[in-house]
Amino acid sequence: MPAGRLTLPIETGIDEQILQVLARFKADAVRNSDGTELPALVSELATKVYSTYFPARGDQEWALGHPDSFVHQYLMSAPRTSLAEGPLEIDPMAGYFPHQFVADIDCDVTKYWQVIDRTTGETVAPSAWHVTRDLGEAKKLGVPKANLVDTADQGKYPAPAHISETRPPSVPLVPVRVIIENTQVGHEYTVNVLAKQIWDSTQMYNYVTNDWYKDPARHKELPYDAWRPEVWQHMQEGLDLWLAEHPEVDVVRFTTFFYHFTIAYDYAGREKFVEWFGYSASVSIEALQAFAAQYGYELTPEDFVDQGFYNNPFRSPSRRFLDWIDFLSAFVASRAKVLVDKAHAAGKEAMMFLGDNWIGTEPYGPHFADIGMDAVVGSVGSAATCRMISDIPGVRYTEGRFLPYFFPDVFCDEGDPVGEANESWRAARRAIMRSPLDRIGYGGYLSLALKYPRFMDRMEEIVAEFRGIHAASAGKRPVNSPVRVSILNAWGALRSWQTHMVSHAQYYRLTHPWIGVLEALAGLPFDVRFVSFDQILSDESVLEETDVLINVGAADTAFSGGSVWENPQLLTLLRAWVAGGGGFIGVGEPSAHKVHKPGASTHFFQMADVLGVDKELGQGLSSRRPQTALGNHYVLDGSEKAPGGKTRLELDQTAEDAKNVFAINEATQVLALNETGIRAAVNSYGKGHGVYLAGLPYSETNACVLYRAILWAAGFQARAAGAEDPLWYADDPRVEVAVYTGENGVKLCAYNNTEHDVTCTLHGSSQVEEIRLRGLEARWFDLHNP
Amino acid sequence: MPAGRLTLPIETGIDEQILQVLARFKADAVRNSDGTELPALVSELATKVYSTYFPARGDQEWALGHPDSFVHQYLMSAPRTSLAEGPLEIDPMAGYFPHQFVADIDCDVTKYWQVIDRTTGETVAPSAWHVTRDLGEAKKLGVPKANLVDTADQGKYPAPAHISETRPPSVPLVPVRVIIENTQVGHEYTVNVLAKQIWDSTQMYNYVTNDWYKDPARHKELPYDAWRPEVWQHMQEGLDLWLAEHPEVDVVRFTTFFYHFTIAYDYAGREKFVEWFGYSASVSIEALQAFAAQYGYELTPEDFVDQGFYNNPFRSPSRRFLDWIDFLSAFVASRAKVLVDKAHAAGKEAMMFLGDNWIGTEPYGPHFADIGMDAVVGSVGSAATCRMISDIPGVRYTEGRFLPYFFPDVFCDEGDPVGEANESWRAARRAIMRSPLDRIGYGGYLSLALKYPRFMDRMEEIVAEFRGIHAASAGKRPVNSPVRVSILNAWGALRSWQTHMVSHAQYYRLTHPWIGVLEALAGLPFDVRFVSFDQILSDESVLEETDVLINVGAADTAFSGGSVWENPQLLTLLRAWVAGGGGFIGVGEPSAHKVHKPGASTHFFQMADVLGVDKELGQGLSSRRPQTALGNHYVLDGSEKAPGGKTRLELDQTAEDAKNVFAINEATQVLALNETGIRAAVNSYGKGHGVYLAGLPYSETNACVLYRAILWAAGFQARAAGAEDPLWYADDPRVEVAVYTGENGVKLCAYNNTEHDVTCTLHGSSQVEEIRLRGLEARWFDLHNP
Repeated sequence: MPAGRLTLPIETGIDEQILQVLARFKADAVRNSDGTELPALVSELATKVYSTYFPARGDQEWALGHPDSFVHQYLMSAPRTSLAEGPLEIDPMAGYFPHQFVADIDCDVTKYWQVIDRTTGETVAPSAWHVTRDLGEAKKLGVPKANLVDTADQGKYPAPAHISETRPPSVPLVPVRVIIENTQVGHEYTVNVLAKQIWDSTQMYNYVTNDWYKDPARHKELPYDAWRPEVWQHMQEGLDLWLAEHPEVDVVRFTTFFYHFTIAYDYAGREKFVEWFGYSASVSIEALQAFAAQYGYELTPEDFVDQGFYNNPFRSPSRRFLDWIDFLSAFVASRAKVLVDKAHAAGKEAMMFLGDNWIGTEPYGPHFADIGMDAVVGSVGSAATCRMISDIPGVRYTEGRFLPYFFPDVFCDEGDPVGEANESWRAARRAIMRSPLDRIGYGGYLSLALKYPRFMDRMEEIVAEFRGIHAASAGKRPVNSPVRVSILNAWGALRSWQTHMVSHAQYYRLTHPWIGVLEALAGLPFDVRFVSFDQILSDESVLEETDVLINVGAADTAFSGGSVWENPQLLTLLRAWVAGGGGFIGVGEPSAHKVHKPGASTHFFQMADVLGVDKELGQGLSSRRPQTALGNHYVLDGSEKAPGGKTRLELDQTAEDAKNVFAINEATQVLALNETGIRAAVNSYGKGHGVYLAGLPYSETNACVLYRAILWAAGFQARAAGAEDPLWYADDPRVEVAVYTGENGVKLCAYNNTEHDVTCTLHGSSQVEEIRLRGLEARWFDLHNP
Repeated sequence: MPAGRLTLPIETGIDEQILQVLARFKADAVRNSDGTELPALVSELATKVYSTYFPARGDQEWALGHPDSFVHQYLMSAPRTSLAEGPLEIDPMAGYFPHQFVADIDCDVTKYWQVIDRTTGETVAPSAWHVTRDLGEAKKLGVPKANLVDTADQGKYPAPAHISETRPPSVPLVPVRVIIENTQVGHEYTVNVLAKQIWDSTQMYNYVTNDWYKDPARHKELPYDAWRPEVWQHMQEGLDLWLAEHPEVDVVRFTTFFYHFTIAYDYAGREKFVEWFGYSASVSIEALQAFAAQYGYELTPEDFVDQGFYNNPFRSPSRRFLDWIDFLSAFVASRAKVLVDKAHAAGKEAMMFLGDNWIGTEPYGPHFADIGMDAVVGSVGSAATCRMISDIPGVRYTEGRFLPYFFPDVFCDEGDPVGEANESWRAARRAIMRSPLDRIGYGGYLSLALKYPRFMDRMEEIVAEFRGIHAASAGKRPVNSPVRVSILNAWGALRSWQTHMVSHAQYYRLTHPWIGVLEALAGLPFDVRFVSFDQILSDESVLEETDVLINVGAADTAFSGGSVWENPQLLTLLRAWVAGGGGFIGVGEPSAHKVHKPGASTHFFQMADVLGVDKELGQGLSSRRPQTALGNHYVLDGSEKAPGGKTRLELDQTAEDAKNVFAINEATQVLALNETGIRAAVNSYGKGHGVYLAGLPYSETNACVLYRAILWAAGFQARAAGAEDPLWYADDPRVEVAVYTGENGVKLCAYNNTEHDVTCTLHGSSQVEEIRLRGLEARWFDLHNP
């Protein structure tokens, strides 16, 4: 029985239990977490020791002594409409959490703040507004009553006392007002504010979640900005000192580097804005100046504020924002490399946590490999996020931190730790089968998990199963279908396995039907790459090396594409490629964009001619569209020789799938239809194929539908029987199959993705076998011994 | 008991029954219908005699002898993508019904046809394409195979023999092809075709519905174009002759004038495109030339084809299209006046049927009154269409043709004539109570209705109730609330009571939540007018004379407004007006438009600040929006002093109501909320009010919600109690009340809009009374005798 490949969290005060658990689980590494200390015991353990290291926070005393070094974040005020002739008063920080942000009024606000008339889009000249600390000034200046800040609102929404009471006294709360002269009645104004972060976002989350306010020894941690020379100096010296003081540590677990993803809390300390990829808190005056010097143009506050959308990944990225990503990533990589080199020089490994202060370390970006990181560890919230970690190039190994985290939000009377562990493993296993993680681990308070023995038992089984997969597969990928799949969106490779994500692996009603495509693909036997519209336009090898292209998402997002579809060259390339034999799968509102050129486009889906379908927006009701669903088709109805077998696959749907989709002509084959429109359709297009699905929330059935849709789009059904996909598959959608070839021979693993027992037949190139799998069971077969 | 005010259809061969029915129903007018002849008996009847008269069709022999006089219609070919370098062949008439249209290839196709590259929006130079009757030419010219019309498709979709077999032999079927040179691969092309109509659209409908193909005496009727001098000459002479030959006729029922609304049938004779307001078949070369001479610019085929949307009323109308409406309406009015004058000169009344060939007679337009029509008769399909007729200015009287029409689609074993009569009456009565019709009538085959004695009994009751209302109200409007309501859209007064209509009064899933607002208003006690965005911008009295403005519909339609919301002046005017005390009610996606100016607008609903809500389109998921519904509010929860009483009103909703609507800040009062978003919300804005409703499909409850929403938006709840709306109302939403004052004193009618018995209390300025009404019952009370 193999051992190792497992990291467990430990803490002070439970030495005896730690020894027992390590022996029982055969863990080969231990770690601390945010808020726990490694016990003295670690130096006696036979395992590797990971220690979290926070380069950009943690030294509170130093931070309070260097208030100029706080990390900045761009915020947009709530919009306010001028309702009377004359000036308008705005409270730019209204609605924000005063214990997270203070407005930076010491900078040159005429340059680093911005007032915009949102009714015209025009920037208001800095001479026409000013910032004041005098809350009575507007009244004195005679601002009309309708345009004054309503002081009755002040204090209406206080922050909960228990998280505000320990506010550092040296960071004063400084309410400010902006007064805009000569506003236009009926126009809406916003203020783009450069604010200072006075509480690290993750530490605040952990603090609130764990009721640390009850512990007088705890303090709130202020983040400091690596761009400042004194901070950078302190970071290096701090790490030198720490490395010297911690000989017991084998692996420096950077958590993470310098800039946190975007979180803004509201007046009551609740999440107001969260965006896992957000660069809003990566900004500083020094960085902006360096950017301008390097790129030859200046970024404005609005380049970050982006109408209040803050360049979140659903927005098609501007050239300017892509420049910032590249600029900041190069900076973070160069400085992170210095810290990593120090760890190496001290004889330790460097591991990066993919999350928290990870901004600037895009692991699929061009600068990441330069850091020289040994490993990446990340939280596994789904199959897609597992692939996001395990597919990362340029590191020696990857580790998945499994759920649940040992925090009291799950390990409590209302929680279901075993259920969460099963769900996490079910999702992760699909991904691990296709692209192995090297290690797994857990995080949080071990003492808390130990109170749940049923969870500890289940964890032991999961760990054993993980090791079994790694041993049988020898850490290699299984055999894949020859069909090469590319996901097409505005981000391309940079955001591989990261599409449609808001907060890390969280459920969002409006992304659920789209992210299911990624979740399905993460466990399907295809080579998957992520390509951008720019790549399609600039590099013809992208389409040459693609058999099936998938475009998925809501209209006018970066994922479906938005205004890129106004480019005739893109349409020319894609339509010619499909007509020549390519497969194009659209899910939701693929290629959807209202083209504003007069006379151009009769469609909303710009690839409507390929997909055979389009979406009704309410202007085409005069067209009657009689359409009926076909009785039978490979994609939904299968055949003996198809994944899922002969079963009729009923698409799992949600109310958020695309609505009002209709066939543009009678040649379109409608596969599924209800009163809200087409749910699935296929279309032949020259020698190629289009497939449309209204939505694909993840389920075992939907994953199987996607499998078949890809094979059909690739033309496997149109070719001779002999050319059919040669992979093994199960004839029940609930069971998936992976086949590994290697020195140990050919091994097949069939795994049941549900909690129900399943009897099915395995079909392959040579043998057919009927098996029965218990709920969640994985079973290995030797197909051929060398 | 009053008599008269009733028109019944009669026909040949049932003289005895006609006499009995007329005596029983006390009808004072009889009529024929399309397809029935007046019996000789009419000259002996004591009633008025209406006769249908078809100026633009009916003389088939003459039509066939003048093939240059056919009415034209602009059609767009199905779009076709070029899939290979070189020319592209298009069958411009593919998919159209060959027995309705033939392509006009005798005109100057370089001017009156148009080929457009829909991928760029550019018109292809006429020198780069040609029309050919040689179906083999494309092959001879070497058009690549992928770009040839697939001849296997030809004949795949034949027209049903029974409606095509009697095709007039003198109108040859002329298949044609368009060959476009040097197309761009991947670009989509369409051909705008000037086609000749060879079958009148309504006559085709009646022909097919009644199986007239079984009757060898029937022929198909070709329409002819009043613009042609020979046609106009023939129309005048024909009417002169007809008037002279029909002394028994008292009322010439023009059905209608010259141009039919747009209908295109598909290859199988089914409706392919239907649009009750459509001007696509009002076009002729002569008219286009006259337009250019008068307006100083030329219209193009695309001005009519409009990307295949044919300027349907959901499209925000272009200036060019509005010019055409005005131009054509002036022409139709001038010629219709000549015909009407002839009827008058012959001692007959002139009545217009509002439908069929009614294009150019917009009854709320500036030219209609010039015609000098005595009366308008129209089909009553709902309360809104009833108001559309009864509110028409400039005629002496109006008549509503009630449903069901005596046709075999309803008067058959599967039909429910009594149910349809009840539903029609329930809807019509609400409208008639607020704005009286002068007469009612029925149409179709009386002989058919006579086979359904239960229907005849119910019809007798309805007729009696109608006469009772007219007698009690003296044909006057009841007392209205002082609150003045304006519906705001792109069409304004021109399309009063005609919003969101595709085919006359037909149910459309995607308009149902919007048209309910009109349906509710048609029976509510408010003065209602329809105003356009242009009016708001050009005439300040519009807002001065409005208390509550309603904007309702789907995003980017003429009804919600679309790109007009990019105009800051519109926002300035409306926001200032609301802030000053106005009420703005938005239903569905009011003021919704993506503003494309960089930096402009943080909202999708441009009036979001007034409504307090906006709609999530998938780019704002990073914003967390905690929102909870209020426990209580006047609009949904009522009060003793509110229509509907203290009942909690549960909005009747449909799946098509607007989704993903959220509160933009905490000041918004959310009244109803479900997992798809906000269903109802209210917001205070300066001294004024905003109200948002996600949808308002018509129901008794929703009408009551709208009633209360209007009162709340008008600020009645904010004023002193004494200023509350003084109208009488019932405290059950199912019962409505109308109060008439006149020489006969003050009379109140309380009517039950459901088939259920209802007990409720009537509240008024002075008395309170509890009553019990049977299903559909209306009861009259004398409030005060003079």
